[in-house]
Amino acid sequence: MSEQPPVDFQLACPTPRSDHERVQMAHGGGGRLMRRLIEEVFVSAFASASSGERSERMVLHDSTVLTMESARLAFTTDSYVVSPLFFPGGDIGKLAVYGTVNDLAMSGARPRYLSAGFILEEGLPLETLRDIVRSMAEAAAEVGVEVVTGDTKVVDRGKADGVFINTAGIGAVPEGIDVAPGRVVAGDVLLVSGDLGRHGMAIMSVREGLQFEAALESDCASLASLVDELCALGADLHCLRDLTRGGLAAAVNEMAVDANFGVELNEADIPVSEPVSAACELLGLDPLYVANEGRLVAVVARRAAEQAMAIMQRHAAAPQPAIIGTVAPAHPGTVVLKGILGGERIVDLLSGEQMPRIC
Amino acid sequence: MSEQPPVDFQLACPTPRSDHERVQMAHGGGGRLMRRLIEEVFVSAFASASSGERSERMVLHDSTVLTMESARLAFTTDSYVVSPLFFPGGDIGKLAVYGTVNDLAMSGARPRYLSAGFILEEGLPLETLRDIVRSMAEAAAEVGVEVVTGDTKVVDRGKADGVFINTAGIGAVPEGIDVAPGRVVAGDVLLVSGDLGRHGMAIMSVREGLQFEAALESDCASLASLVDELCALGADLHCLRDLTRGGLAAAVNEMAVDANFGVELNEADIPVSEPVSAACELLGLDPLYVANEGRLVAVVARRAAEQAMAIMQRHAAAPQPAIIGTVAPAHPGTVVLKGILGGERIVDLLSGEQMPRIC
Repeated sequence: MSEQPPVDFQLACPTPRSDHERVQMAHGGGGRLMRRLIEEVFVSAFASASSGERSERMVLHDSTVLTMESARLAFTTDSYVVSPLFFPGGDIGKLAVYGTVNDLAMSGARPRYLSAGFILEEGLPLETLRDIVRSMAEAAAEVGVEVVTGDTKVVDRGKADGVFINTAGIGAVPEGIDVAPGRVVAGDVLLVSGDLGRHGMAIMSVREGLQFEAALESDCASLASLVDELCALGADLHCLRDLTRGGLAAAVNEMAVDANFGVELNEADIPVSEPVSAACELLGLDPLYVANEGRLVAVVARRAAEQAMAIMQRHAAAPQPAIIGTVAPAHPGTVVLKGILGGERIVDLLSGEQMPRIC
Repeated sequence: MSEQPPVDFQLACPTPRSDHERVQMAHGGGGRLMRRLIEEVFVSAFASASSGERSERMVLHDSTVLTMESARLAFTTDSYVVSPLFFPGGDIGKLAVYGTVNDLAMSGARPRYLSAGFILEEGLPLETLRDIVRSMAEAAAEVGVEVVTGDTKVVDRGKADGVFINTAGIGAVPEGIDVAPGRVVAGDVLLVSGDLGRHGMAIMSVREGLQFEAALESDCASLASLVDELCALGADLHCLRDLTRGGLAAAVNEMAVDANFGVELNEADIPVSEPVSAACELLGLDPLYVANEGRLVAVVARRAAEQAMAIMQRHAAAPQPAIIGTVAPAHPGTVVLKGILGGERIVDLLSGEQMPRIC
């Protein structure tokens, strides 16, 4: 044997010294420090939030083996680069769970498993990372998804912005559910689950240092349970979209262009809260284009509109549901807004964006 | 109707002007520019490399619906932050496909589907992005995996480093295959599929501006087909690891610690090429700790060692297979290297890393 005593193999490292309390390049190097970071920060949070056995696998294997109850899966991914990392009503960790969960739900899927990839900037306080991971674990536990596999990379100071998170998600698509733009037909009805623009304006109010009488909080939330109930509509549930980047305008435009149908929206029926409306006016923004992180639009058969509305009205994730428009046989690919004063205007896709890095 | 004529809804944008030939913040804004980027760069590359229908879905839905042939899935994720983006023998795009494919293969799974999340730095030349995406599409086509869902975010100049890529992957685990550290028993044999250290040293030679007589190229490659053939060993295939960050030393140490077994490696049997050995000596690095992106270690039952060796010998992805050691009943959790001159030393996990941002 070697002269070195065979100690110190079982991660028997001393408690981190204070200069270790920030992310170092070595935390991404595949050695002992990375392993400690994974065990102390990631596994401990995600294991307590779900079945311990699975989260243990985050460290132990290159990939995780899962059993699915359905052969039809939904699969999606999103990276999160929101700035600031913490904002009224949420943080990047919550966003990284709810955002991907919601994308799965928009296929009518029941979200089951998430992956989590972290890109950390050298110098990030470990306490910040712990807070974010704790928030992710809480969000995952609330929704009933498990974070089962992960990855950590560290880049040099100035080569990232604190932390970027990618999550990918797998969901199970129930029998008989087929939710897609191609299923939309003329006469269908559009419902929105709540008032618009809270997430984007919460972020902007922090960035611009604005103070309003009523606090502007992000609407950041899971839509999975609401979608689960909307699945009671069966084949009458035609299409779903969450209203993230680009807001309602982008979501409805994309559906209309992709499936070549026209949409007529009624401005008077679209819910926007007083504080969001005021903040938008101040900053010269249109709430139709502002991002949400807990709102969806549902396109349903006309005969199912009342039932859809009733489901939303009794669900906490749909705080202000409204029927906002219909699918029109005319002007395919175009979204028209009937104004409160009777005029009409076309709701187009913006070329770029109103607000960078809101998710 | 509005005064605006109802044109320009079908993404009828003019050909990009030259100032559009770099990534702008607006490319991540959920508007028309983002849609164009997705269609022109991502969908066109990934659709031509796989079934067009699926890749179309990258744009059209929040998530993609897939059908799996097996209820047992492998699921994994990795972010890629390698610097430089292009290196001898590969680039970040290839790495992002092969790396995640290899992680799936290490569970004995057949890789099927990938997600791709891009974090782009404002100012990145679009041509660079196109080259990377083309390389990803070629790698995916070669392996037979489909990139079925994606995401694009843009961060301000100086807040990222060109491009970071996250891929998550789903694979199907065949019946009767159970590959995990817990299946390793005393007497098992360790095989390595080829010579060590090529990827890490290729990256370092570029960074340090070193010139060697023989070019140092990354070993960056898919291990999926090799693993598929190793699955012929059935229950005698106990564990697999690809030798990425931390190299052979980290991979074998992690297995040994996780499943509490000891390992004895024979230095004389571990293949290291002359140029890698010379470069390591020059830079003061130990090839056992240098990253590979196309090498694996397989732990098999002793009776299956010859068969495993024969499979590797006839497979192109195992250019220099070797039996390098055994699982020892003594010193659980410890890896011991028997030196060429007869001495023994413990191969420990490094605290941090030898080389930052090699993947």
